[in-house]
Amino acid sequence: MGTEISYVIDTLYAIFAMTLIIFMVPGFAMLEAGIVRTKNVTAVLTINTLIYAIASLAFLLIGYSIAFGDFGADGMSKWAAFLFQMAFVGKVVNIMSGGVSERAKVIPLAVFTVIMAAVIYPLVVNVTWGANLLEGTALALSMYDLAGSTVIHSTGGWALLAAILIIGARKGRYTANGIRVIPASNIPLLTLGAFLLWIGWFGFNGGSVGSIASKESADAVALTIMNTNTAGLAGAIMVAIIMQIKYRKLDITMILNGALGGLVAITAGPDLYDIYTPILIGAIGGALVVFGVSFFDKLKLDDPVGALSVHLVNGIWGTLAVGIFASNGDDITFMGQLKGVIVVAIFAFVVSYVILYIINKVMPLRAHKDEEVQGLDVEECGVEAYPEFKRAF
Amino acid sequence: MGTEISYVIDTLYAIFAMTLIIFMVPGFAMLEAGIVRTKNVTAVLTINTLIYAIASLAFLLIGYSIAFGDFGADGMSKWAAFLFQMAFVGKVVNIMSGGVSERAKVIPLAVFTVIMAAVIYPLVVNVTWGANLLEGTALALSMYDLAGSTVIHSTGGWALLAAILIIGARKGRYTANGIRVIPASNIPLLTLGAFLLWIGWFGFNGGSVGSIASKESADAVALTIMNTNTAGLAGAIMVAIIMQIKYRKLDITMILNGALGGLVAITAGPDLYDIYTPILIGAIGGALVVFGVSFFDKLKLDDPVGALSVHLVNGIWGTLAVGIFASNGDDITFMGQLKGVIVVAIFAFVVSYVILYIINKVMPLRAHKDEEVQGLDVEECGVEAYPEFKRAF
Amino acid sequence: MGTEISYVIDTLYAIFAMTLIIFMVPGFAMLEAGIVRTKNVTAVLTINTLIYAIASLAFLLIGYSIAFGDFGADGMSKWAAFLFQMAFVGKVVNIMSGGVSERAKVIPLAVFTVIMAAVIYPLVVNVTWGANLLEGTALALSMYDLAGSTVIHSTGGWALLAAILIIGARKGRYTANGIRVIPASNIPLLTLGAFLLWIGWFGFNGGSVGSIASKESADAVALTIMNTNTAGLAGAIMVAIIMQIKYRKLDITMILNGALGGLVAITAGPDLYDIYTPILIGAIGGALVVFGVSFFDKLKLDDPVGALSVHLVNGIWGTLAVGIFASNGDDITFMGQLKGVIVVAIFAFVVSYVILYIINKVMPLRAHKDEEVQGLDVEECGVEAYPEFKRAF
Repeated sequence: MGTEISYVIDTLYAIFAMTLIIFMVPGFAMLEAGIVRTKNVTAVLTINTLIYAIASLAFLLIGYSIAFGDFGADGMSKWAAFLFQMAFVGKVVNIMSGGVSERAKVIPLAVFTVIMAAVIYPLVVNVTWGANLLEGTALALSMYDLAGSTVIHSTGGWALLAAILIIGARKGRYTANGIRVIPASNIPLLTLGAFLLWIGWFGFNGGSVGSIASKESADAVALTIMNTNTAGLAGAIMVAIIMQIKYRKLDITMILNGALGGLVAITAGPDLYDIYTPILIGAIGGALVVFGVSFFDKLKLDDPVGALSVHLVNGIWGTLAVGIFASNGDDITFMGQLKGVIVVAIFAFVVSYVILYIINKVMPLRAHKDEEVQGLDVEECGVEAYPEFKRAF
Repeated sequence: MGTEISYVIDTLYAIFAMTLIIFMVPGFAMLEAGIVRTKNVTAVLTINTLIYAIASLAFLLIGYSIAFGDFGADGMSKWAAFLFQMAFVGKVVNIMSGGVSERAKVIPLAVFTVIMAAVIYPLVVNVTWGANLLEGTALALSMYDLAGSTVIHSTGGWALLAAILIIGARKGRYTANGIRVIPASNIPLLTLGAFLLWIGWFGFNGGSVGSIASKESADAVALTIMNTNTAGLAGAIMVAIIMQIKYRKLDITMILNGALGGLVAITAGPDLYDIYTPILIGAIGGALVVFGVSFFDKLKLDDPVGALSVHLVNGIWGTLAVGIFASNGDDITFMGQLKGVIVVAIFAFVVSYVILYIINKVMPLRAHKDEEVQGLDVEECGVEAYPEFKRAF
Repeated sequence: MGTEISYVIDTLYAIFAMTLIIFMVPGFAMLEAGIVRTKNVTAVLTINTLIYAIASLAFLLIGYSIAFGDFGADGMSKWAAFLFQMAFVGKVVNIMSGGVSERAKVIPLAVFTVIMAAVIYPLVVNVTWGANLLEGTALALSMYDLAGSTVIHSTGGWALLAAILIIGARKGRYTANGIRVIPASNIPLLTLGAFLLWIGWFGFNGGSVGSIASKESADAVALTIMNTNTAGLAGAIMVAIIMQIKYRKLDITMILNGALGGLVAITAGPDLYDIYTPILIGAIGGALVVFGVSFFDKLKLDDPVGALSVHLVNGIWGTLAVGIFASNGDDITFMGQLKGVIVVAIFAFVVSYVILYIINKVMPLRAHKDEEVQGLDVEECGVEAYPEFKRAF
């Protein structure tokens, strides 16, 4: 195929994939707006909007160069290559902001977004997908992580763990009488958000193949998207089965999180497997969500959206799964995958913790307890989400 | 054009079309969640989610081979060809599940989904678009049905009719004092869902052309999408005119169903017509929705979403319309279309009825009357859709 | 690249871009449904649906020929070229209908839609992007307006100004005690709508480059989409900063309108700038939204969705910005841009005013005051948007 045709097709393909990923912006926003209580919905939507705006601009101005050295891509328009990478950035912070919702203030999260998108995440990308500062050192990573089980999802998950340790649980969540269940306020929004994320994943993983402009690449792209989808299906079904057996209730919030867990788990290597392995990886991903949610609740790590289970646990699982299941006989090893998981974990957790700690000293991350009780919407945003609807309680 | 370029472009095109069709998953979910009462919203969202998960996986593991013989496609990646076909499967069950919502239980519908996606629908595809078991027999079909007015929409519609006959109407719907109107609970969701379906249809019909990688194919694709859209426009406008004249009220639930009716009607032959015929086909499709809804209510066939009118009646109308309006001088005949309609009708209705009858004996399809009065959400899912919003009644 | 390959790729690209633009139909619908009070939500959704249906069909039957002379496009399928242009039409009326919501009746707006889509807008397109009736006359325009800052957004904005002058403000909006704030009723819907519009803009502006089938075109498309997005980011951030400084409240309705203002402003020349200029253009666009909203309120021009600021002011600003910032040394001049703004302004405002004035004489645009107090949904549509939800007031 001529190089100009290939350049055109891969530019078009990157733009298509980028567009799908941008659907994850309303995807995360609707998912989180559906999960939190009505009194915190506007705040959640506001931080989601600001994350997209701030993270993308910080990545344009600073982060992209740190990650990749410079604007430039041989096989497609350099602007399309940038757009595709830019679409990823906000996701790392979305993962983190969702898990501290209902008590974290918007402005300090916005400040953290700048640092995450301009420096922390770009450094992670640098040593994994990018220019690779670590090359030639003992820390150099050989981890295979096609679309970011570790680079995106675990990084965001570690930042979230740091944030929860600093910010603490929602008031009244863990009491002397046990864990108080706080129900999701709007299930249709949550469902819509989950499916927008799911569709966005086709662009996320499919686009990460990097090219579609040859027979081999086209097959790799289609296999990647099929396997991505399969893991999501298996995650949802696995959780549905567990829910039905354990509780005789098909809890859709868990089922959708199971799908997302499966999607996170497949993300490290959707191009590496036959068509059956993703069923296993996704099903285990779904099960990990169910057990993860209980596990973190036992540790009193309060995470309203289940992001630690979906993104952190499954980010790790998916990266290690490549070491277990990939059989393409090349550089992939379980130990290489494990090393990648650990190096990124230490870096992402420690740096996020330090930065959040400093931000917290300057401007408290946590809303005042009166504000938390009232809901963050009025104080932070001056706008109630549903002012005309009478509250049932 | 070189075969590799064509392979790449058609793979990309199939993935694009597939992605649009997947938007129909939240499309159906939002449409139905908007139509049913708030007490049944979570159950509707849960079954929609499970249908996508179960139908797609069953089609991957069993159904696809029954329909097409084997994975394989000459002109594009075989995985892309699979993904495109997989995107269709759940729709057949969505059509059916929507029409029995507010009283059908989730688990038996999930069981039916397995059988529909693994066997019933694949057999319909086999004898129409696929490997063709009937070839050489007296039953062999010559029906032209580009994107499934009959194969998808009527098949789902016949299954729905079977299900309604077994399950019965919602409690209190048909009383001694006439038909009780049960208003849709969330019009914005319903509208969002209808437009996601509409956009998905571009992928459904456009992708069914099968290739875009030549001047002729590109023209056929663009004409197909234009005509598809035109029929939707005409269906909406026709219903708006009827509503305004008959009731002096522009009932948006009917207008959107009119658009969907027009879209179903054009689906058999959007590539066959000039740019004006779809206006007529879609307008008649819209009118059929209005009269269909009254007609089925007179028969006390309770269908909360109007799926019998939208999908079954218009699936038949659209398939016959090809026999009336198509003028490409080849194998298409009205009798050939009618034969296809009838053969699929008998097969889909009888098999669905038998399977649903058996399922119903083993695990009742219908919720207990107390559960129906309370709403299915609490008992089936343990999750209310809008727990913080006070009910007006 | 061979002409057939180019034909195929550009047809595929136009269909992709068109599809993204169609997401703006639910985008506008959700945005407006989220902004207005619950009692007017169904009416807003109904007019949005009818606008898409009526405007698209009128453009197919009449408008397209007025604008472009005839169906036909050299470099891609003529049907794809039509679909792309058709996707624009309804937007002009959406801009206008949003600004008169909560008091304008559906049927007269539908009548105006026919005339706008069949004649007024096509004439504007004719003299800017199309066949150019004015060629050779003193009025001939040299304005550069890639994707319609003036052609789409200002045209719709001028029509809206005409409509507001005729229809007047909502009852109780401007009182002796000052301006009564009427809060948006559903912030998640509003947010969803804004992001669907944002994503649609990638197709709007990216598709307006007209071709992706060469290295230069592919770069132009990717740059266009990147710059489009950047202006939206900058608009949102600028408004967030202003809101935080002025009110210490991050009002998301203003932040999202700031993003949309930035997107409107970049629309005239997203292909002309380096990667930094859009930050400036978008940030100014955002600021103009904040000050515009106050300004029009001082003039008692009641515009519930802020469309005058977002679309009219920024349409003008964006068109003039091309004259200020574009440095490609060719025909673009500030005076040429200004002339385009003025000619279109006079034409669009005067013609819209006259047509709306006549319509208003035949069938009043404004709902009866009892109907307005009760909300338009019951009288116009016979369908409440949220019948089961108890109102807080």
